[in-house]
Amino acid sequence: MPSRTPDAGRRSETSRRAIYAAALGLVEETGYPKTTIEGIAARAGVGKQTIYRWWGSKADVLLEAFLDLGEQQAAGEAAPGIPDTGDLAADLKLVLRATVDNLLDPRFDGPARALSAEGLVDEKLGRAVVAKLLEPNFDLYVERLRSARDAGQLRPDLDPRIALELFVAPIAQRWLQRTAELSYGYTDTIVDYALHGIAPR
Amino acid sequence: MPSRTPDAGRRSETSRRAIYAAALGLVEETGYPKTTIEGIAARAGVGKQTIYRWWGSKADVLLEAFLDLGEQQAAGEAAPGIPDTGDLAADLKLVLRATVDNLLDPRFDGPARALSAEGLVDEKLGRAVVAKLLEPNFDLYVERLRSARDAGQLRPDLDPRIALELFVAPIAQRWLQRTAELSYGYTDTIVDYALHGIAPR
Repeated sequence: MPSRTPDAGRRSETSRRAIYAAALGLVEETGYPKTTIEGIAARAGVGKQTIYRWWGSKADVLLEAFLDLGEQQAAGEAAPGIPDTGDLAADLKLVLRATVDNLLDPRFDGPARALSAEGLVDEKLGRAVVAKLLEPNFDLYVERLRSARDAGQLRPDLDPRIALELFVAPIAQRWLQRTAELSYGYTDTIVDYALHGIAPR
Repeated sequence: MPSRTPDAGRRSETSRRAIYAAALGLVEETGYPKTTIEGIAARAGVGKQTIYRWWGSKADVLLEAFLDLGEQQAAGEAAPGIPDTGDLAADLKLVLRATVDNLLDPRFDGPARALSAEGLVDEKLGRAVVAKLLEPNFDLYVERLRSARDAGQLRPDLDPRIALELFVAPIAQRWLQRTAELSYGYTDTIVDYALHGIAPR
């Protein structure tokens, strides 16, 4: 997070929101390489020194804009993270349905594609995207799967860091590469297959 | 495939290989948007009319160059497709280990990242990549999983088109987004989890 003095107040908050919106809009429209701090500043109606005061690079601005977007998307939800009602299948289905909603949200889709695309070829940016946007989300799955494992609902030898990929990777691929449609029926099926296996019981 | 007359002969074959290599090299070095038919022709040492005679666009050249690369990579393998020894777990482990080898092959990694990255933001190109490069591969999984299902080794109600994603998507995400290392131990674990489920049996 940017370091801000407590009295930076309302005006700074407004600027910060305008800067996030400008950064997300520009990366969607022109791609990551052509997005510049100058362009973000001009579109947000602030001086570029305002941006440099808070962030070190355009990658920093964009990653934070996405974190903020994620917080806004989650604001309508009951609690952050993955619920733990004791029914793992139901909890995962709920979260994956919400993930589908978020991925298909047009505020997210365009900018996230542009950032992800650049992350594939720019290894440093890609690793920052993973560390700041993906890993914190993976950690929530690890925690929920570990809790289920400790409750005897998952194999005792399970590696939660690998297991979570059965849930998140198929959805990521359908979204990123448009290999097929994302739907609630699809995510429910993925949860069922991953939990119980595709071999007969 | 390009339409070629039977007497186009050896010289055309040499040109074709040079054009594929030029296309793959350029897309890796400069990205998809800056790769041009003119650039490919210059690097391959052919006239651009030679390229236009065989292909309609740079996307066509690149997709075919990848198909050809896949054929070369598979040339050392026993048979195309997924083996069917009757032991589904062993067959999938073998194929996924070979997939890891191919993904980590430097001839493939750079150009494939550049093409995939552009496919995320250029929907038409992305759909062509899926149709020409991914779907034919998915079809092999569908066929193998259907055969196992019919042999009673998978749930009778299984949708093979969804099930295959438990195997291919985690590996695609680790490779594309560099979320973690790809290894044989990892792909073996994915096969185990997907076949038998992460819940206790």
